[in-house]
Amino acid sequence: MSELRFRQVHLDFHTSEKIPGIGGRFDKSKFQEALKRGHVDSVTLFSKCHHGLSYHPTKVGQMHPHLSFDLMSRQIEACREIDVKCPIYLSAGYDEWAAFAHPEWLACSREGKSFNPTQPGFKALGFDTPYLDYLCEQIIEVVENFDAADGIFLDIVGPRDNFSPIALTKMHGFGIDIFDDAAVSNWKYQVLQNYFARTTVAVKTGDSKRKVFHNSGHILKGAPEINRWNSHLELESLPTGGWGYDHFPMSAKYAATTGFDFLGMTGKFHTTWGEFGGFKRANALRYECAAMLAFGAKCSIGDQLHPNGEMNLDTYALIGAAYAEVETKEAWCRAAVPISDIALFSPEALIGNSFIGRSKYNQAEEGAARMLLELGAQFDVVDGACDFAKYQLVILPDTVTLTGEFLEKIEKYLENGGKLLLSSASGLNSEKTEFALNLGLELVGKSEFVSDYLVPTAASPTSPVRGPFVVHGGAFN
Amino acid sequence: MSELRFRQVHLDFHTSEKIPGIGGRFDKSKFQEALKRGHVDSVTLFSKCHHGLSYHPTKVGQMHPHLSFDLMSRQIEACREIDVKCPIYLSAGYDEWAAFAHPEWLACSREGKSFNPTQPGFKALGFDTPYLDYLCEQIIEVVENFDAADGIFLDIVGPRDNFSPIALTKMHGFGIDIFDDAAVSNWKYQVLQNYFARTTVAVKTGDSKRKVFHNSGHILKGAPEINRWNSHLELESLPTGGWGYDHFPMSAKYAATTGFDFLGMTGKFHTTWGEFGGFKRANALRYECAAMLAFGAKCSIGDQLHPNGEMNLDTYALIGAAYAEVETKEAWCRAAVPISDIALFSPEALIGNSFIGRSKYNQAEEGAARMLLELGAQFDVVDGACDFAKYQLVILPDTVTLTGEFLEKIEKYLENGGKLLLSSASGLNSEKTEFALNLGLELVGKSEFVSDYLVPTAASPTSPVRGPFVVHGGAFN
Amino acid sequence: MSELRFRQVHLDFHTSEKIPGIGGRFDKSKFQEALKRGHVDSVTLFSKCHHGLSYHPTKVGQMHPHLSFDLMSRQIEACREIDVKCPIYLSAGYDEWAAFAHPEWLACSREGKSFNPTQPGFKALGFDTPYLDYLCEQIIEVVENFDAADGIFLDIVGPRDNFSPIALTKMHGFGIDIFDDAAVSNWKYQVLQNYFARTTVAVKTGDSKRKVFHNSGHILKGAPEINRWNSHLELESLPTGGWGYDHFPMSAKYAATTGFDFLGMTGKFHTTWGEFGGFKRANALRYECAAMLAFGAKCSIGDQLHPNGEMNLDTYALIGAAYAEVETKEAWCRAAVPISDIALFSPEALIGNSFIGRSKYNQAEEGAARMLLELGAQFDVVDGACDFAKYQLVILPDTVTLTGEFLEKIEKYLENGGKLLLSSASGLNSEKTEFALNLGLELVGKSEFVSDYLVPTAASPTSPVRGPFVVHGGAFN
Amino acid sequence: MSELRFRQVHLDFHTSEKIPGIGGRFDKSKFQEALKRGHVDSVTLFSKCHHGLSYHPTKVGQMHPHLSFDLMSRQIEACREIDVKCPIYLSAGYDEWAAFAHPEWLACSREGKSFNPTQPGFKALGFDTPYLDYLCEQIIEVVENFDAADGIFLDIVGPRDNFSPIALTKMHGFGIDIFDDAAVSNWKYQVLQNYFARTTVAVKTGDSKRKVFHNSGHILKGAPEINRWNSHLELESLPTGGWGYDHFPMSAKYAATTGFDFLGMTGKFHTTWGEFGGFKRANALRYECAAMLAFGAKCSIGDQLHPNGEMNLDTYALIGAAYAEVETKEAWCRAAVPISDIALFSPEALIGNSFIGRSKYNQAEEGAARMLLELGAQFDVVDGACDFAKYQLVILPDTVTLTGEFLEKIEKYLENGGKLLLSSASGLNSEKTEFALNLGLELVGKSEFVSDYLVPTAASPTSPVRGPFVVHGGAFN
Repeated sequence: MSELRFRQVHLDFHTSEKIPGIGGRFDKSKFQEALKRGHVDSVTLFSKCHHGLSYHPTKVGQMHPHLSFDLMSRQIEACREIDVKCPIYLSAGYDEWAAFAHPEWLACSREGKSFNPTQPGFKALGFDTPYLDYLCEQIIEVVENFDAADGIFLDIVGPRDNFSPIALTKMHGFGIDIFDDAAVSNWKYQVLQNYFARTTVAVKTGDSKRKVFHNSGHILKGAPEINRWNSHLELESLPTGGWGYDHFPMSAKYAATTGFDFLGMTGKFHTTWGEFGGFKRANALRYECAAMLAFGAKCSIGDQLHPNGEMNLDTYALIGAAYAEVETKEAWCRAAVPISDIALFSPEALIGNSFIGRSKYNQAEEGAARMLLELGAQFDVVDGACDFAKYQLVILPDTVTLTGEFLEKIEKYLENGGKLLLSSASGLNSEKTEFALNLGLELVGKSEFVSDYLVPTAASPTSPVRGPFVVHGGAFN
Repeated sequence: MSELRFRQVHLDFHTSEKIPGIGGRFDKSKFQEALKRGHVDSVTLFSKCHHGLSYHPTKVGQMHPHLSFDLMSRQIEACREIDVKCPIYLSAGYDEWAAFAHPEWLACSREGKSFNPTQPGFKALGFDTPYLDYLCEQIIEVVENFDAADGIFLDIVGPRDNFSPIALTKMHGFGIDIFDDAAVSNWKYQVLQNYFARTTVAVKTGDSKRKVFHNSGHILKGAPEINRWNSHLELESLPTGGWGYDHFPMSAKYAATTGFDFLGMTGKFHTTWGEFGGFKRANALRYECAAMLAFGAKCSIGDQLHPNGEMNLDTYALIGAAYAEVETKEAWCRAAVPISDIALFSPEALIGNSFIGRSKYNQAEEGAARMLLELGAQFDVVDGACDFAKYQLVILPDTVTLTGEFLEKIEKYLENGGKLLLSSASGLNSEKTEFALNLGLELVGKSEFVSDYLVPTAASPTSPVRGPFVVHGGAFN
Repeated sequence: MSELRFRQVHLDFHTSEKIPGIGGRFDKSKFQEALKRGHVDSVTLFSKCHHGLSYHPTKVGQMHPHLSFDLMSRQIEACREIDVKCPIYLSAGYDEWAAFAHPEWLACSREGKSFNPTQPGFKALGFDTPYLDYLCEQIIEVVENFDAADGIFLDIVGPRDNFSPIALTKMHGFGIDIFDDAAVSNWKYQVLQNYFARTTVAVKTGDSKRKVFHNSGHILKGAPEINRWNSHLELESLPTGGWGYDHFPMSAKYAATTGFDFLGMTGKFHTTWGEFGGFKRANALRYECAAMLAFGAKCSIGDQLHPNGEMNLDTYALIGAAYAEVETKEAWCRAAVPISDIALFSPEALIGNSFIGRSKYNQAEEGAARMLLELGAQFDVVDGACDFAKYQLVILPDTVTLTGEFLEKIEKYLENGGKLLLSSASGLNSEKTEFALNLGLELVGKSEFVSDYLVPTAASPTSPVRGPFVVHGGAFN
Repeated sequence: MSELRFRQVHLDFHTSEKIPGIGGRFDKSKFQEALKRGHVDSVTLFSKCHHGLSYHPTKVGQMHPHLSFDLMSRQIEACREIDVKCPIYLSAGYDEWAAFAHPEWLACSREGKSFNPTQPGFKALGFDTPYLDYLCEQIIEVVENFDAADGIFLDIVGPRDNFSPIALTKMHGFGIDIFDDAAVSNWKYQVLQNYFARTTVAVKTGDSKRKVFHNSGHILKGAPEINRWNSHLELESLPTGGWGYDHFPMSAKYAATTGFDFLGMTGKFHTTWGEFGGFKRANALRYECAAMLAFGAKCSIGDQLHPNGEMNLDTYALIGAAYAEVETKEAWCRAAVPISDIALFSPEALIGNSFIGRSKYNQAEEGAARMLLELGAQFDVVDGACDFAKYQLVILPDTVTLTGEFLEKIEKYLENGGKLLLSSASGLNSEKTEFALNLGLELVGKSEFVSDYLVPTAASPTSPVRGPFVVHGGAFN
């Protein structure tokens, strides 16, 4: 499988069926000019958007009613002429057209709500309904009839509550008790795995090496059964769009350990996706792209194409400012491998192959990562599959209790001379009653006061405060 | 069109698809024996129940999975042999089978809820969806292929919020602004009229005189555009089932003025519909049937047939105790016409052809009706279409303000020597600022105190209290 | 102690400090005339009302600011001249004047609310504050300086949440943990017993036989430690005022077993207390008074005196209609003792000396009492202190499980030939796992279905239904 | 009046009555040593804390029950010996001891709540109750009997809802309708002005020049009737304690224009007030003190003294690190006057002499201030009393519409050659229908779209984006 390009654009194109003149001002040469101005060498193009509309003729779905030609193919053609790659996007989890044509495919909450009729918002389809067949047929149509040589990007992927009549019938058929939360949770995992299997097979139709990425807005750590369905990873992380500046470093330092080729995805927006006329300052974009390279990632910048198909040259001037720099550096970045002395174990990795309990933010990991970044230390973020032997130090931040195989792995690492840095409850057994490791330490217990105090001794000579200082939340003794 | 029979049973038969052995103990002669024991001469039989299941072979819908023969036809046959009529029931508003087969047909609230997946309850279908076509086809199949000579009973009829994708699309097509409550309300009226037209035409297939009744649980007063779709009226009113003992007299005294042949419908249940093993005391049932005759109605008693198809002989002994008495009296009741001196105008009649704002209870009408009943006065409950000339007295209870044609009608009635009894705000103009009628009365105003006082004068010599007595809620002066 | 009079009036006189001319139209002879017209022989007069204002000069409290003479003494004088008794009323639990003069005495909920500043409503004082001293001084002033020979009536008595600063300090001093519900509940009981002791001693000042009644709106059954503080019982029970027509019979049939002299208290109001200008129909009042006599009670009718002190002659004509009849019958009612064959045990009696968990209504007792009343059976309502030996039948309705001394008492009653009627769970042990009594019955268990069915056998030959009939809520087998 | 010292400590000493051994380890020489180590030249000492307890003998209030000597006087004595000034603190708005001794003095919300009995929290006293007399007597006792030469600091000052019985009676007496929000608001202002007058007069007892500061946690802009009661200003603004790093610069740049001598008050805490054992990093404290000097303020650092009276030497080492630097610079800062070219008008100043509608944060002002700070521009934050003539530029940020005197002032400023910078709705009339100023600009209207677009023209040649860019929230045209 070919390596990812370094200078990508994710060219969103979600256009309502109410908008006239779709693609009316598309001009191949102008399109090419914009890409060139942006120093872009790969652009993700749209087959089907959240509105469920296709931007090319289709026998399966619904072409945009105000599109009169095969826009996607014209865009692909423009790209091929100037050696720009073009992966193809299909919205998997949202599809307004299908929602209206087949309301029975909508996912329905435990309270019986599929969507709010009086509020705007994309509608979520159930992968446990015939929608999945429909989606797979759309994928197959694209890979068989269009030039999808550069792969497929599937969006809005994840487990989803569904208590619709169709889902209830299916759960009933499989003997799932809808009042048994564990059974329902397991069922949702099965539905998701089935989604992955079906859509991935569809993508591979006719080319078993065709790339595919299933986007959930966050790369799960320690979830190989989820990540394995991807050909590579795309780390969606717009610092001003809700992810913050801390998310990308932690995500990239994890991705770099997985063996996947990967890219970092930010946006050209002042705020977040879909913001026409919002521009990030050029220096911010230069910083973000430089950080991507530094963390071992390729670059992708999100943009939204105008419904009339005309590229915004201001945007591509802006992107060009960053990508021109990337272009000069990328030869040295290709196949670069980060060499780290330190492994920061992500508490998120303890969750396993599940979406439940995760969030984009993880305080313990984030606190440790910030300190390491500020120190300029070289570190990887790792999960339990990691080979600790290559690290001089393993950090278990705050909440990593030890048991089973993972405990044995850590013990072996220590026997072989590894060093461990523990904070708060890390290193204790799962009941937090004593240390799981033989560290020469004894757990006296959790302090009985919610705020407790530590007094520095001769063992910590550099502390500027010598008297007691407070430990909020209490301390282990 | 033939007259209604006097001794009817409404034989509910809602049976879940999970119940085995449907009709397994049906025996024609036993069925006939029960009807005879009950002195029953008409029984409403089931084509399709709330579960959406048919009790006969069907090419349109779904026969009950645990029914192996044409139960309905066997029941009809039993009836024909002993000259018992048998109107056919189809559930219009509820249909579980359709809800699961076509979730897109479900009605959906403004909040986006179609049903509660975790609670029991029948699901409401939208008459503004293809469900209406399906329902009409079911009706046509019954009238064309089975013996539906005695008419069709359609249940659970009324306007219904529907903001499902299908309904939103349809409203959008008709230019209905879903945030304009009046427009949505009017739209719901159109949907309902369309339901009436479509289903009524379906019933009449092959026999333009075939009877039909659309049941809403209450006969709307002053709503000719709703009631006109019926061949006759069935006044559902189980005193112990939520309607109370006051509902039937008011409803019957109204029905008697409409020109429709009508029946009163109570139940054999101790409480309400669906109560297997619950029995009303025989004297209660005798009283209720006698009251129906007295108010000019035919009788109908609700029962629920056991899923195995066997009639409960205790029930029919109980029914027989009441119907044997009816049988001896009915010759004198046939074509009887109530002669009343007094017209009690129902405030409900001011609402017009709409379901909104009604309830089974109407305090002003109920208070006046109770007094008249206790006095043993002969009265009709009337709406604005009434010819007041035949009454010596018209009562406008509490809330009947006067305007337009109705005002003119009352003025003419008074000119011709009619007498009017007004209470509270009745007789005022709609702004309640002065009397709409020239009564020699002057409205001074509404009292400024929430509780006000009246002092009896020589004009009311029989009041036992001579000093001031309280008027809660304030008085008009 | 003298016997209660038969024809009493409870003459409410709650008058806001904003009302001018208090007692301005009081006229002794007119006052006497009204009492005579009403055939009244005892009238409860007001020392202090809910507004906290006194109707006589006072050195302790606050005389009504718009009262210029000793109204109460003038009323007493009027009564003495015509041999009408006059117990004296003081509002114990409510006192608006004290609430404003000493906000620190207000009772305060667990949420920190003493009263709603923006809503009308009397304010509740804490008996665990210096208010209790103030109240006792008011009582002593009345009994020492005025003619209180006929006793004292104290109103609005009961336990009360109080988490005010004063109460918190006191609870802290006694080591009460305010988060320990049982401890707080016990503390409230101690506060109430202290109220009873302190106020009762105050009433007895100078006359240890002076009558006193502490009113809570309901006579607690099986609570001797609460009831013992009274000289007699007054059964407040206005059928149209929230108590309903079922409350008085059950309460009276219990009171008759306690050995206390007692009266039934209804009102002359159309609805409830404080309704100026509302009149009950004379027949209703005649019925209620006749019922009181029949149940062994003396009579009391509540009225509210006009602020100007003038009696309403319409009211006393109404009362007279009932009391004239009482007068002709009372000679035969004096010292009459009900002779009952049946003891109906009140489930309320299991609660003990506590207000918690009671209500005016008790479904199990009410159901049994209704049946006995309809049957015309002679019965007493009893508690656990009852000597069952005098009854041929003891009824334990629905919820009376058996344990300890009460069980032994029932066993002894049965050994001596007594008969027991049990329904639902009555007669079981407290865990409801088997019968506590050796009845030749075996408990198979509670039915597994929420609605269960009974089939009549030859042992119940009179049941008109011979097949299964439903038991809602399930049955014990 | 003497100038404020540069190196102050605000020495909190809120100690519960449950804590034993108050001041038990106070040692004059150690206390002096700590102050010297901290380079402190003024320390605010406690007369009465939030618990309502005094730290010296008192005939008015309540000395701490576990304090056995005159701690405050010993602290003053220590200060005098080493020429450290010592203003005296009294808690005005909170007083736990008074709350329990006089619950009737508590302020009570419109919902009837004075405090939550089950939650910790200081209780708020009503300045419209006798508590105000009590507070004034405490102040007078301090200034007459102790060495209060350096002034008084009164804390927790502001308007307060009070609907307690005492407050209701008082409002009723003044004819305030409690349902008239404007009347209640005005009443609260009168109560507050009365508080200011009474307490300020009390402070001046015996020395009309004695300093006083009334602390509300924020210096109100454009509220001369509030601020005039102070001798100087103390700008409480702990960046990590809820105020943030933006609050102090805006507050200081305003204070500098008022003519008051003023100080900035931060804390030595890692988070906020009351954190024993929490230490700010020394560099942070050095930065904050340097910023205070730069903005023309004296410095004050908040600390909390241990209940045993012993100073924490770690803390004073930390403070010393910052104050040693201040000491070397203060000679050059004394009487320094900021010279600014730019006046940033605070929208907060439009509110007037009221607390309502303010918050510590003001987005329009904050946005403008951040830009000016980042540009390194010299600016003052000003209110309507400002003499604009001394500025080359006046900025009216976002929400400053113009009317009346303020409009005339701006017009005159422009006539005299002043320059105005307007953003968003600033400069419009109060109805926002046209420009209040003759600027050669015409208001076309507010855009009809919630997000609107601007296209840069030749007049803004430096904009890197040349095409349309988005204006969130819509734009004025």
